[in-house]
Amino acid sequence: MRIGVIGAGALGLYYGALLQRGGHDVHFLMRRDFQAVSSKGLEVISPQGNFHLADVRAYRNSREIGPVDLVLVGLKAYANEQLVELTRPLVAPGTTILTLQNGLGNEEVLATAFDRKQIVGGVAFLCCNRGEPGTVHHLDQGSIRIAEFFGGLSPRVEQLAATFSQTGIPCEACADLTRIRWEKLVWNIPFNGLCALTGLPTDRLLSCPETRQLITALMQEVIDAANRQGLSQAIEAPAFIERMLQVTAGMEAYRPSMMIDRQQAAPLELDAIYRIPLERAAEAGTPMTRVAMLHALLEATESSKL
Amino acid sequence: MRIGVIGAGALGLYYGALLQRGGHDVHFLMRRDFQAVSSKGLEVISPQGNFHLADVRAYRNSREIGPVDLVLVGLKAYANEQLVELTRPLVAPGTTILTLQNGLGNEEVLATAFDRKQIVGGVAFLCCNRGEPGTVHHLDQGSIRIAEFFGGLSPRVEQLAATFSQTGIPCEACADLTRIRWEKLVWNIPFNGLCALTGLPTDRLLSCPETRQLITALMQEVIDAANRQGLSQAIEAPAFIERMLQVTAGMEAYRPSMMIDRQQAAPLELDAIYRIPLERAAEAGTPMTRVAMLHALLEATESSKL
Repeated sequence: MRIGVIGAGALGLYYGALLQRGGHDVHFLMRRDFQAVSSKGLEVISPQGNFHLADVRAYRNSREIGPVDLVLVGLKAYANEQLVELTRPLVAPGTTILTLQNGLGNEEVLATAFDRKQIVGGVAFLCCNRGEPGTVHHLDQGSIRIAEFFGGLSPRVEQLAATFSQTGIPCEACADLTRIRWEKLVWNIPFNGLCALTGLPTDRLLSCPETRQLITALMQEVIDAANRQGLSQAIEAPAFIERMLQVTAGMEAYRPSMMIDRQQAAPLELDAIYRIPLERAAEAGTPMTRVAMLHALLEATESSKL
Repeated sequence: MRIGVIGAGALGLYYGALLQRGGHDVHFLMRRDFQAVSSKGLEVISPQGNFHLADVRAYRNSREIGPVDLVLVGLKAYANEQLVELTRPLVAPGTTILTLQNGLGNEEVLATAFDRKQIVGGVAFLCCNRGEPGTVHHLDQGSIRIAEFFGGLSPRVEQLAATFSQTGIPCEACADLTRIRWEKLVWNIPFNGLCALTGLPTDRLLSCPETRQLITALMQEVIDAANRQGLSQAIEAPAFIERMLQVTAGMEAYRPSMMIDRQQAAPLELDAIYRIPLERAAEAGTPMTRVAMLHALLEATESSKL
């Protein structure tokens, strides 16, 4: 499969590397890592085994990539005003555009320019950071869940899930994109924001009784809002929260992407992870009080950098 | 009047200096400023006029002070485990003990050791910081409100208020200590915690729409809880909040004491300003959701220093 990776951050580099190792023809749009990858290839450090790709097709401009079978979007959602422009040269009538970006609103941005039947959304459960240029550190997990933006379980997403799984990316095809996106938000909303705001990794937040309780309350608010979004099946709160807390405990001292973004003084994905979900929740009559407060604190500390 | 000042931080130094300038016999228990004040006196920098007290009675040990007519307590509430021990040598049967400490629970600590009829509580509306040792910077405001812990408007507090006012400390005698303490919390709870947590001074929080709205919501929670504490007269929410926001706007880029404490890696007055008010609110059936979240975030970032 001819694949184009738009947004070669940790997620794009890691999944792109696995797909290339699995025999696919992968083309990466790169900024920070272009020079390093062009000269010495891409190094993947992973508990599942390190590997090195000597010959990686890296580009500075997506026009040089041209049409592909699959666009894999890993762009930070705060850069979404460039998403259509970066993606357009890769899209032909038969192209599938898969966005694995965080939060809500990404498929909608793609749908302003492309046929919504070409768009697939997905969420990645991946602990992964970029290291020095040309190296990506896979820390834990890595599975993804994908679903048609158009809705329903299609042969296309089932085929795509099989393709991913064959290359070592556990992938599940799902019928309800809204549900998988909101399920991911149940984790992202508390941990991304709290870690970025406090500068504490996940284990420190879980070991403090006050913040552990706060995390549970935030998750409950997200689930209450999610269950008003017309999901095919409700998220069952106590069990789902317990599972999320257990998974997080297993991640040890994890620094979510938003915490890393803040430490690097990069923008934060506040619209995708907070603003748009808060709007959807408010429209459904669930105000998500604590989530709104976390968003306010992140906005205030973000604008203080100006 | 023979006066002993326990806890000669910014508040104790400033009010003690005004009382001494007004002709009272003031004795200061000091730590940080002892050496500087003993050798070169106390300098007050104030928009109402700078002044210098050359001869200041400073002590390292409150036993050297002995009994006084009035104990003025300005100790940080996080040091309350020392409060009784520090105060005891100053207390005779006729002594009035006035605590101007922040938050709730301070009078109760004094009442474990002293006759509750000797205890007066008060709140200070004072923008004041310590400068280099031997200097205190008065920035703005300075009025205080005092009331009997025992309850009711007594001749004693009216006399005390008159004495303070004569020395240039605008002072109002009030009948309802619970009300004046909770009114002060309406300001302290949002601004002390949010400034400490975000590292932003008051003006930055007010100019960000999300945090301005959050401040209003926090104040509303505190007022709702306050109005369940059996106040003699309810706090009227929209008007009181509007006044607090206006007063704060006039303070410009103010850094509340808790923000300074955090910047100096000192302990925070979390029990007096958050934990005890949250307990009282919960007992009254008003959970103060956002206040609890702010407390959790402050606790988590506090324990991270350990």
